[in-house]
Amino acid sequence: MTKVLILGGGGMVGQKLARKLLAEGLPGHGTLDITLHDLGFPPDGAVIADKRTGDLSNLAEGAALAAERFDVVFFLASIVSGEAETDFDKGWQTNLWPMWHFLEGLRAQHRASAGAYVPRVVFTSSIAVFGGPYPDKIDDDFLQSPQTSYGAQKAACELMIQDFSRKGFIDGLSLRLPTICVRPGKANLAASSFFSGIIREPLNGMEARLPVPDTVRHWHASPRSAAGFLTHAATLDTDHLEGRRALNLPGLSCTVAEQIEALRDVAGSNAVQRIRPEPDEAVMAIVSGWPRNFAPERATALGFKAESSFREIIEVYLDEDFQGTDPR
Amino acid sequence: MTKVLILGGGGMVGQKLARKLLAEGLPGHGTLDITLHDLGFPPDGAVIADKRTGDLSNLAEGAALAAERFDVVFFLASIVSGEAETDFDKGWQTNLWPMWHFLEGLRAQHRASAGAYVPRVVFTSSIAVFGGPYPDKIDDDFLQSPQTSYGAQKAACELMIQDFSRKGFIDGLSLRLPTICVRPGKANLAASSFFSGIIREPLNGMEARLPVPDTVRHWHASPRSAAGFLTHAATLDTDHLEGRRALNLPGLSCTVAEQIEALRDVAGSNAVQRIRPEPDEAVMAIVSGWPRNFAPERATALGFKAESSFREIIEVYLDEDFQGTDPR
Repeated sequence: MTKVLILGGGGMVGQKLARKLLAEGLPGHGTLDITLHDLGFPPDGAVIADKRTGDLSNLAEGAALAAERFDVVFFLASIVSGEAETDFDKGWQTNLWPMWHFLEGLRAQHRASAGAYVPRVVFTSSIAVFGGPYPDKIDDDFLQSPQTSYGAQKAACELMIQDFSRKGFIDGLSLRLPTICVRPGKANLAASSFFSGIIREPLNGMEARLPVPDTVRHWHASPRSAAGFLTHAATLDTDHLEGRRALNLPGLSCTVAEQIEALRDVAGSNAVQRIRPEPDEAVMAIVSGWPRNFAPERATALGFKAESSFREIIEVYLDEDFQGTDPR
Repeated sequence: MTKVLILGGGGMVGQKLARKLLAEGLPGHGTLDITLHDLGFPPDGAVIADKRTGDLSNLAEGAALAAERFDVVFFLASIVSGEAETDFDKGWQTNLWPMWHFLEGLRAQHRASAGAYVPRVVFTSSIAVFGGPYPDKIDDDFLQSPQTSYGAQKAACELMIQDFSRKGFIDGLSLRLPTICVRPGKANLAASSFFSGIIREPLNGMEARLPVPDTVRHWHASPRSAAGFLTHAATLDTDHLEGRRALNLPGLSCTVAEQIEALRDVAGSNAVQRIRPEPDEAVMAIVSGWPRNFAPERATALGFKAESSFREIIEVYLDEDFQGTDPR
């Protein structure tokens, strides 16, 4: 029996991951005993008996969870970029300190077990750890110079995970996720929310707001890929990381115009006409600082996989989350 | 009157900086009102009236200092790499949390002044933020992947300084100092201590231990250069940093063999014979992970300067710190 904890298990990616673990398990592990932890859970969510409602900002909660000695921990809990930028205090209090205290809790268990307990920790970092100016493609040796609080917090968490791992207290890695697209459900406070909105809303017969020019290029992967990254990271031989425990993941680089053409290809021009350009200087300012393209050679060599066209990304949404009449 | 605070003002670099400020002031500033803070001070130290003995690990102390609204803060306080590696708790407690709480203290003053108070903060980071494998020369875009706790702590402090600066709460920058050589005084717990020891001890008629092969290449600058980096950073127009507030500084790349030949050149073969090879696997393991050479184009363009030969570095030691009969 492998004990698995998903921190942030009520969120979109956490739910995708839980469903994938229920359906497929983890290679090399037997039965999984899965625990979800989050501020709340969707009513129609993944069928997991052990759902804990709580808040890691109460630092004692992280220590209490750590004391249960989970074998694999997925650390997805975070507030999103837009909120961390608006509320400086909440950003650092939510996105950094709970990580430190949880890692300290794991280290206490490591010590108490005389070194026998070394949990795998998979952390969802972000391409927001990077800041421009960028090369055409960001390679695996590019500096972290975040231009948002969210990115700074993710980068600081990466440093902690790397140091705790180097010392052998945990066996951790950080995944710099591409922007996850198409997110099901409603728009959220992330500045990147519109990348999903301009596909999801038109497919559902609704109007979508496009706050940036269609020449904006960005780096995407589907929720299905995100769940795949996480389970792959949970079973990876971390010796292959050679001490660099943060990975740029594969994704798809495309412009908003290319996203829109893929939508037209799948759902026709009527769908495209539901996209309403509505320039927003604040969103443009944030997005203009974001990475556009990567050459993620290490993660690709390690077997991480993502989509190779934006049409494929739309099709994942239609297959997994779309409730209406399939336009294909 | 410009109020200047040197945190870690009792240390070797802090003292060099204090003497330089006393002698030269700061370009563009009038009279300086200098305060030093540290765990203790050397008896024959720089003549500064306002010396505060204290410990930033008492987090309230940082907040109290911040409340005095210094115009320029040099943040040098830190435990060294060897100690941070041996004592994991002490490393993070000393090298990270005091920075956060001090920055929060400055932010509280920024708010209380309705945004008028924006202190310059100059932080001594380190080339320990890097980890191998390295290119021949590390350029300004190279990733931070520290392989020591000290390096991870310095890199995390850099992220905080960058984010507080981006938000306008402070006007900060982080200087990734080369290894400072020749350090006067006694050996310390830094794994890099021998780089100074093999020059300083022979010049003073004492035996020196060389724990690594003489093929080891490393990146050096003198204490005089370190003080120069700090005063230059205090008066730099930070708009030129374009949002990347950590800088790789200029230095001199040379091998231990080249260091030894420079010593022979200055002080003769008798001095060189006082160097005793005594291989130490632990030191070699640490040093083998360190950077060897840089192409610090940004800092050079911004006017930071270091020595261009190791002989020059030895001569700075003879000029500033050597007490014996000058061998030149």
